[in-house]
Amino acid sequence: MPDTLLRHPFMSQSALTQSSTPTLVEAMLAFELALAEAQEARGAIPEGTSEAMRRALEAHVFDLEALAAGVASGGNAAIPFVKQSRAALPNELKRYFHMGATSQDVIDSALMLLLKPRLAALDALLLRCRTAAITLMQAHEQTVMVGRTLMQQALPITFGVKVAHWAIGLEQARRRLAQLELPVQFGGAVGVHSGLDGPGQDGLGLDFMDAIAQELGLATPVLPWHTDRLPIHALGTALDATAGAAEKLALDVALLTQTEVGEVSEPGGEGMGESSSMPHKRNPVRCAMIRGAARQVHGYTTVLLNAVAQPLERGLGEWHAEWSPLVDSTLLLEGALEQAAVLLEGLEVHPEAMRRNLAATGGGIMAEPVSRLLAPVLGQDAAKRISAEAAETARLQGIPYAESLEAHAEVRGRIEAEALRQATDPALYLGSSQAQVRRAIAWLQRE
Amino acid sequence: MPDTLLRHPFMSQSALTQSSTPTLVEAMLAFELALAEAQEARGAIPEGTSEAMRRALEAHVFDLEALAAGVASGGNAAIPFVKQSRAALPNELKRYFHMGATSQDVIDSALMLLLKPRLAALDALLLRCRTAAITLMQAHEQTVMVGRTLMQQALPITFGVKVAHWAIGLEQARRRLAQLELPVQFGGAVGVHSGLDGPGQDGLGLDFMDAIAQELGLATPVLPWHTDRLPIHALGTALDATAGAAEKLALDVALLTQTEVGEVSEPGGEGMGESSSMPHKRNPVRCAMIRGAARQVHGYTTVLLNAVAQPLERGLGEWHAEWSPLVDSTLLLEGALEQAAVLLEGLEVHPEAMRRNLAATGGGIMAEPVSRLLAPVLGQDAAKRISAEAAETARLQGIPYAESLEAHAEVRGRIEAEALRQATDPALYLGSSQAQVRRAIAWLQRE
Amino acid sequence: MPDTLLRHPFMSQSALTQSSTPTLVEAMLAFELALAEAQEARGAIPEGTSEAMRRALEAHVFDLEALAAGVASGGNAAIPFVKQSRAALPNELKRYFHMGATSQDVIDSALMLLLKPRLAALDALLLRCRTAAITLMQAHEQTVMVGRTLMQQALPITFGVKVAHWAIGLEQARRRLAQLELPVQFGGAVGVHSGLDGPGQDGLGLDFMDAIAQELGLATPVLPWHTDRLPIHALGTALDATAGAAEKLALDVALLTQTEVGEVSEPGGEGMGESSSMPHKRNPVRCAMIRGAARQVHGYTTVLLNAVAQPLERGLGEWHAEWSPLVDSTLLLEGALEQAAVLLEGLEVHPEAMRRNLAATGGGIMAEPVSRLLAPVLGQDAAKRISAEAAETARLQGIPYAESLEAHAEVRGRIEAEALRQATDPALYLGSSQAQVRRAIAWLQRE
Amino acid sequence: MPDTLLRHPFMSQSALTQSSTPTLVEAMLAFELALAEAQEARGAIPEGTSEAMRRALEAHVFDLEALAAGVASGGNAAIPFVKQSRAALPNELKRYFHMGATSQDVIDSALMLLLKPRLAALDALLLRCRTAAITLMQAHEQTVMVGRTLMQQALPITFGVKVAHWAIGLEQARRRLAQLELPVQFGGAVGVHSGLDGPGQDGLGLDFMDAIAQELGLATPVLPWHTDRLPIHALGTALDATAGAAEKLALDVALLTQTEVGEVSEPGGEGMGESSSMPHKRNPVRCAMIRGAARQVHGYTTVLLNAVAQPLERGLGEWHAEWSPLVDSTLLLEGALEQAAVLLEGLEVHPEAMRRNLAATGGGIMAEPVSRLLAPVLGQDAAKRISAEAAETARLQGIPYAESLEAHAEVRGRIEAEALRQATDPALYLGSSQAQVRRAIAWLQRE
Repeated sequence: MPDTLLRHPFMSQSALTQSSTPTLVEAMLAFELALAEAQEARGAIPEGTSEAMRRALEAHVFDLEALAAGVASGGNAAIPFVKQSRAALPNELKRYFHMGATSQDVIDSALMLLLKPRLAALDALLLRCRTAAITLMQAHEQTVMVGRTLMQQALPITFGVKVAHWAIGLEQARRRLAQLELPVQFGGAVGVHSGLDGPGQDGLGLDFMDAIAQELGLATPVLPWHTDRLPIHALGTALDATAGAAEKLALDVALLTQTEVGEVSEPGGEGMGESSSMPHKRNPVRCAMIRGAARQVHGYTTVLLNAVAQPLERGLGEWHAEWSPLVDSTLLLEGALEQAAVLLEGLEVHPEAMRRNLAATGGGIMAEPVSRLLAPVLGQDAAKRISAEAAETARLQGIPYAESLEAHAEVRGRIEAEALRQATDPALYLGSSQAQVRRAIAWLQRE
Repeated sequence: MPDTLLRHPFMSQSALTQSSTPTLVEAMLAFELALAEAQEARGAIPEGTSEAMRRALEAHVFDLEALAAGVASGGNAAIPFVKQSRAALPNELKRYFHMGATSQDVIDSALMLLLKPRLAALDALLLRCRTAAITLMQAHEQTVMVGRTLMQQALPITFGVKVAHWAIGLEQARRRLAQLELPVQFGGAVGVHSGLDGPGQDGLGLDFMDAIAQELGLATPVLPWHTDRLPIHALGTALDATAGAAEKLALDVALLTQTEVGEVSEPGGEGMGESSSMPHKRNPVRCAMIRGAARQVHGYTTVLLNAVAQPLERGLGEWHAEWSPLVDSTLLLEGALEQAAVLLEGLEVHPEAMRRNLAATGGGIMAEPVSRLLAPVLGQDAAKRISAEAAETARLQGIPYAESLEAHAEVRGRIEAEALRQATDPALYLGSSQAQVRRAIAWLQRE
Repeated sequence: MPDTLLRHPFMSQSALTQSSTPTLVEAMLAFELALAEAQEARGAIPEGTSEAMRRALEAHVFDLEALAAGVASGGNAAIPFVKQSRAALPNELKRYFHMGATSQDVIDSALMLLLKPRLAALDALLLRCRTAAITLMQAHEQTVMVGRTLMQQALPITFGVKVAHWAIGLEQARRRLAQLELPVQFGGAVGVHSGLDGPGQDGLGLDFMDAIAQELGLATPVLPWHTDRLPIHALGTALDATAGAAEKLALDVALLTQTEVGEVSEPGGEGMGESSSMPHKRNPVRCAMIRGAARQVHGYTTVLLNAVAQPLERGLGEWHAEWSPLVDSTLLLEGALEQAAVLLEGLEVHPEAMRRNLAATGGGIMAEPVSRLLAPVLGQDAAKRISAEAAETARLQGIPYAESLEAHAEVRGRIEAEALRQATDPALYLGSSQAQVRRAIAWLQRE
Repeated sequence: MPDTLLRHPFMSQSALTQSSTPTLVEAMLAFELALAEAQEARGAIPEGTSEAMRRALEAHVFDLEALAAGVASGGNAAIPFVKQSRAALPNELKRYFHMGATSQDVIDSALMLLLKPRLAALDALLLRCRTAAITLMQAHEQTVMVGRTLMQQALPITFGVKVAHWAIGLEQARRRLAQLELPVQFGGAVGVHSGLDGPGQDGLGLDFMDAIAQELGLATPVLPWHTDRLPIHALGTALDATAGAAEKLALDVALLTQTEVGEVSEPGGEGMGESSSMPHKRNPVRCAMIRGAARQVHGYTTVLLNAVAQPLERGLGEWHAEWSPLVDSTLLLEGALEQAAVLLEGLEVHPEAMRRNLAATGGGIMAEPVSRLLAPVLGQDAAKRISAEAAETARLQGIPYAESLEAHAEVRGRIEAEALRQATDPALYLGSSQAQVRRAIAWLQRE
């Protein structure tokens, strides 16, 4: 099939292949068995039923091609799944299977079960990123580099503080993901547990719902949420935020690895980033993969934003449109975070290139502090003009900025050489860079 | 200008015109004065400076046309604003104005100040919606109507439970909005408070940042967040979720007001929903306005999703692309919620139409419970067939379903008439509808 | 794998399984062989080379798992594909393989080759839709139904004219698709055919490019388009437009199949639209599938909109983000059109339900023509009032509108009964419905 | 109001302020008068009516606040506009005003009239871009620079060919825009010209429609297109493509103006790109404005993609959601193209920086041609290794690549020095760069 080679490379390879990942069929079955158990525990179906079902169905080999065909005609995977399951059960169990449930209960709950291990995997990857980032922050607390605004050199910062910003973004995303709830779905045909209530027992359906949630380790919603898709919106947008945080990292690394900048390199790795035709290149392939994945996640999220409003008691296409975006976003994001973790753990940092770039403008980036130094003596306007003139001279003559300032006709003898040297030293102009790293680490480790 | 009549109708009229809403200029000024106060309180600028600035600038009439021209050349509104402000200050104050700040500090903080009263207004509107919804839920706890899946009649529910689902969606959104943080921005040129630190004082910039936050009633971020746009993503997507919840309400109401359904009507109002050519019509205009606004919000949110990753220390277009989407989303959403509140407070409910529609299939919607009643006596397959045949007969002959069943050759004499009457009575087949309303109200009132 | 059952049902089953569909590997190989042929024909590589390559590689079984692994490290499928191909070639051919080409040449051209048969399939499906629509238009040129604006009954139209609008939408999309160009890609490492030119031969690379295009039946671009992604934007948005046209059809059909409306039904089909729990239902599953697919296409298109701007001579994630959206959009759209064709070919139309609904307002939908009839005699304001009053009386008493009007105190004796009868007859108030059908058919058949 | 300063800077200032731009009210009036003229010309209303209307209404001063209030209650601007217009007309004309028309006819046609001069302005700006680009291409046909893939230095190209790619993108967009049709809208309440037909005259409404189109200089649609929104999709996506082409230009220029790259500069201009705090900076503000605008256009386009499917005979929010995105996209795009034209006309090109950057890898970018030169003599593997080793030596020792190669133990004496010099000269390795410029100019001038 044409699509696998085009989509899968961006996805988490371990998630795609791990045997611990439940398949959709396994997840649907888990829901049905939990339902039967909950009903049995409350005496709604005969004792032993759920165990008998489990034995019969866990041994059953589902016909995946028939399932696929059934999806196309029924509109979702639960319909053929329930049909095959019933057919595989002994007659006396058939009526107790999927009792009081509807397709959407099965699919929504199964999706939550598929997402649960994925969210755990994302959390683990984000913790790896956090650890690696803290290590980098500590190692580079004093590594001076130039800060760039609108991609122009501006003023000095440290590499530590840059990593701190990456780490805060990723950690904000992690905490947002950690607060997500994966609610069970169980409401029956129109969401009100039709037929499950008896006289004075109108809460029985909700009892079942709560019990299934507990059984499956899912969250308990207020009510069934067939067309209240806020939980999906919360999931999708939290995934998207995480993709954005990873994308920011990848954008910065890609910019810093540019040949002319060269301040960091992607970690090597066999075959990583090689070019078939150009032996000298090491392409920032991990960054490209992260950015490629993140952009696809944004597209999927757009689908979810536009599908929150679903008509009456069941979506008519809106619900169906959620499945692939939700699952594929997760797999793409997991792929992106695998790359991000490797990136942060193995990033090659080149402080000497950072120093070289700091000097690229002949010291012009220090024109602001110089201007501040000169202003009280020479007046604000002259200070601005002179600081710029001397920077240009320094750049053209290849001499240090301090020297060029000292030699300037209007400066000579009016400002101490040492003061000029200090004002032009990027390493003395780092503002709160170190305090920021300390504060960031404290915040990152708080939880 | 062409756009006002096309965009403003969807927006909150009170927000657009209220004098209590700060303008961007007022908000930028509030930031600068809070900065000066924080610096004065820490001895960084002479005592009395901030008060003198306030007197000079609050009296100053800004030249809005010059501001507009300055935005186009400088790329943001802070640049000409700072220029005009400085020009309006006495010479001795000029150097203390905007000290250590950068354009992005001013704009981001001002945006948060603009959003603060808007979020309060959204919360108030959502509380109005909640109150109105609870009233509707209580009034219609037992109002039977048909539930519809894929827009087909399915099984009975109550109108109360339908309102409960709307209310839960809106309340989930309200709680998500309530948790949002509006962080102050203050980092200086490259985000590290360049030049604000002295010997051993590298935390001074962060101190200022925290103090400004407190002064302005904004949240304190971990660090300046010039290119960590997760806070913007959190804001935008929470607004979008709310838009989605309102859109769900509007979609349902629009479907229920269809001429052939007629189960609810939008509240009247002078001129609301009239058609210039067709006197008999009452268009669901409020629903159209909500849906029109929500779709625009989704588009704006898509811009924000794609702008989280911003390069290095300042966005190059990504940041600029956030402003309008963020502010306009809020105004559109506020407009939508004003409509939603009116809708819920004044919704006309037509229980008789609900009963009429329940009968539209000749009782066919009760085929499932009937089938369950027949199954133990006639077998499952026959039960299914007969329940369908009798429903068709009832529909064609215009007789009650129970009667048609009783007359069916295979049923006659084998099932009690009373049992048939009960099995075909929608009001006896409401599942957990009432329990759901109780549970929903308890949850809604929890906070 | 979890995703297949969630994504594939929306896609064209024939496209997913047809042996005539080239795989990505086949398409990449086709490009490389065409390149070798073009170079051989111009004497750039020895005679017989391309044929020898073809024999060696068409017999070669590619190791798909190794390909997949290679994609992840190299960033695209061409890198491991070229490696495997070279390894499979006799030594003397290796250097002539992929000569002067870069990964993006291979991938972009292969994608165009994958899309070519898909566009042909889309065209064929759209022609099927057109034929079916014309048949429906002709059959229902005079079938009266009510037109609905903002989902409220408004004034009469014919079912024929409604189908005409569907058909025009789909045909506009077809013509837009038909004008698309699928350009070959061939530019070498940085898009300028580095190393392929000799003295005075700087146009050789472009010659090769043109020859490969001809060989493969692809379009000839002005220049290589590695980072000029307008062709991708044109493709993606044309697919999206088609999805929108199909979605409009599905939305209308879904609304018209509502239980309370019942004017059309989806064609039956074994298992189509059945509900696992409710025997009386026939769900508009085809509409749900179309709408589900179309929404996903919109999300993919959003990815493409945001990926047009690619940096310098090769995208860094932007390009990678195009692949899946482009290919999957096509498969989803093809699936949607397969459903649309079946829908139009087998749509069950219920003119009696249309007539019943026309009477639902007691004739109130004819208040406008009645008002026009009364105005010259009774004045415009009275006319509006009376037409509304009589409609309400008719609805409440269940009598024909004409009768209620005739009995109105202010009308009695002042207007001819026959005139009233005509003014209240929807079938005499169809405006240009029939002319529109004629005009639409002429336009549809023009090409 | 907060929004103007945040949104307008990105928009075309001339479009926002030009007196030649019609306002929405003027455009709605133009439609109504053209309708009256068409009806008068066909004898449907008394002679002289349209002229009398024109006199009355062109003199009338519309109450814009009342209009704004009316929009909010009626749901669109046409409803209060028609009401005010009728009130302003002498009694005998009232009934002939807006005859047979519906709000959507007025709004859709008025939007097309608003867009018509904007499309002309976009075309003019794109022609300015084309002319400026051709001048740059000719001036820099031989200006050698490095091509960069994944933002890594790859192989040489010319600046001329880079400009050619920008120009082709913009010109493709221009041609797509030039093919757009702006169709008139006229269908009456439900799109079938209800009440306009007489016996045997069912084509009269279509006649009117065609006549209005001609009168207003708009295109003639096949049929009224109230809910066939393909024309809007075509418009929106063509605007979006143009935004993408401008965004590509801005992205490249922003990357090339980076301090460390410095190959081009944005044209200066009073106050353009200055930083309030850093005197040495010249920010690429025009690029930021273009990118900011383009991203907003993509968001608006996403709204349009999701609004193509509109229910039955009139959208319920979907239509309303189109207005602002359509008009604002156009204004944003026009603003972006004004910047793009200035950028291309005044771009400062720095060939010496291009040469400096070509040498940054010590010649490593020429490793591929060197490797080709060495391969026949030393074997392919050794050639690759040696070409890389020598490049590294050259970079470390700061000597020319040719020299370092010549000195390599395995090369010495085996390859001619002149051959090495030529293989390492970027200016001799430009592939089809010049041929591409020639071909591009021929294509650009074709039309």
